[in-house]
Amino acid sequence: MKKIYSIQNTKIKDLIKIYQKKKYMNTLLVEGIKEFEMAIKGNFLPIRIFICDKIFHKYSIIQSFDSITFMINIKIFKKLAYRENSGGIITLFKEKKYINQLKNIKINKNNSYLILILDGIEKPGNIGAMLRIADAANIHIIILCNMKTYMYNSNIIRCSLGSIFTRNICLEKIESIMDWLQKNKIKIITTGFDKHKKAINLYQTKFLHENNIAIVFGSENQGVSNIWLKKANKIITIPMFGNIDSLNVSNAMSIIIYEIIRQRNYAI
Amino acid sequence: MKKIYSIQNTKIKDLIKIYQKKKYMNTLLVEGIKEFEMAIKGNFLPIRIFICDKIFHKYSIIQSFDSITFMINIKIFKKLAYRENSGGIITLFKEKKYINQLKNIKINKNNSYLILILDGIEKPGNIGAMLRIADAANIHIIILCNMKTYMYNSNIIRCSLGSIFTRNICLEKIESIMDWLQKNKIKIITTGFDKHKKAINLYQTKFLHENNIAIVFGSENQGVSNIWLKKANKIITIPMFGNIDSLNVSNAMSIIIYEIIRQRNYAI
Repeated sequence: MKKIYSIQNTKIKDLIKIYQKKKYMNTLLVEGIKEFEMAIKGNFLPIRIFICDKIFHKYSIIQSFDSITFMINIKIFKKLAYRENSGGIITLFKEKKYINQLKNIKINKNNSYLILILDGIEKPGNIGAMLRIADAANIHIIILCNMKTYMYNSNIIRCSLGSIFTRNICLEKIESIMDWLQKNKIKIITTGFDKHKKAINLYQTKFLHENNIAIVFGSENQGVSNIWLKKANKIITIPMFGNIDSLNVSNAMSIIIYEIIRQRNYAI
Repeated sequence: MKKIYSIQNTKIKDLIKIYQKKKYMNTLLVEGIKEFEMAIKGNFLPIRIFICDKIFHKYSIIQSFDSITFMINIKIFKKLAYRENSGGIITLFKEKKYINQLKNIKINKNNSYLILILDGIEKPGNIGAMLRIADAANIHIIILCNMKTYMYNSNIIRCSLGSIFTRNICLEKIESIMDWLQKNKIKIITTGFDKHKKAINLYQTKFLHENNIAIVFGSENQGVSNIWLKKANKIITIPMFGNIDSLNVSNAMSIIIYEIIRQRNYAI
């Protein structure tokens, strides 16, 4: 392990440029111990690892990467890191193009897969939180479309606790998704407002164990688009009893996904 | 309604100072139409209303406030507002000290009240989202303690969609909360990690209709503190099936609160 204690070092200068998005090199920046471990678990390749001598202490996780690890001091670390409480580690990983393509995913119609479709979610924090729920719920396939931000936005990484690296994620156009869903006879479920005439209360909805289902969530401001509402087999609504008529999209997702989990695993 | 088209106007200069937190005057700033309506609903008193001539169009909501309404142009509006998509309205309200005090709240032990306790939640966005869920779920009493941010932080207002103005909120010290819960024989429910020896799976927990219950959520990093874990009648855990072992606190809250709603309202 080498030590770098000067901000003038080329590797640090490079890193600063990547942080400032002035340089890119097909890399992605990952801050944090948990996030590092998740990226490794997801077979992302580390290029350079920077650890802060004052903060970092979990040497076991980096021992096989000694030749690409650099120890930096707290002054440099603070200059670089967005977050200081991430465990003192910044890693530059090689970007991996998503190899998951829907057309290569075959689904048996007798499975009970849960598929998540996020169409045009705008806030990185929401995307991250939704990936975190998808991990907790062990959702089999996640499909992203109409992305408004960079896939590896630091907030997506952080709010997903790195599960963006380990889940089965596909980036697709809406037409390909529709085709694939139809071909595989996957039921489409979307959320709609109370006022939507076909909307059913979540708690009066049966999510049958034998069906593959895809749940679609739309943008924070517009909700699910009409294309999905038209194609949906079921439009569900979460009962609300107060003054406001919607929930944050990640909260809505957690309520719906966990109701499906409850019915599939715990309902008597 | 008067027009102000100069940034040099005293009222605009005042507003800028309040935005920059250089001036305070026991006021609070509210951006947005929905948020304005919620503050009015919550009996907050508007002092000055600024509407943008290019964006604002919902004149019906401000018609009774003509003498305190000022029309500004888009240049001034953009200079002021954090958000441009909030409907073109910025309102200065008189701050209201919370009149809700736990000691004045009497609870019949035969009620089935749902009480929410947020202890030391750090992120304004999370506090806001949790207040939004509390509104949707019509939670009767919300108790905040160990607040790390200003109550009327713009992000709390925004993420709660203004429900911070309309809900029954108490700001209390932990000792007073404990006393009040005990005196009113309110059951305490907290969340704990899987590893916690007494933790029960959420879906194996019965939330009886006849009991008043208080649900406690703790800080994003530390979780619920030991004081609560010791006093808890039940420690519940959300089943998770992936690589990571926790959810965002607002997502955890939405799953638990809606399971209680389901059991109380929809379970057969």
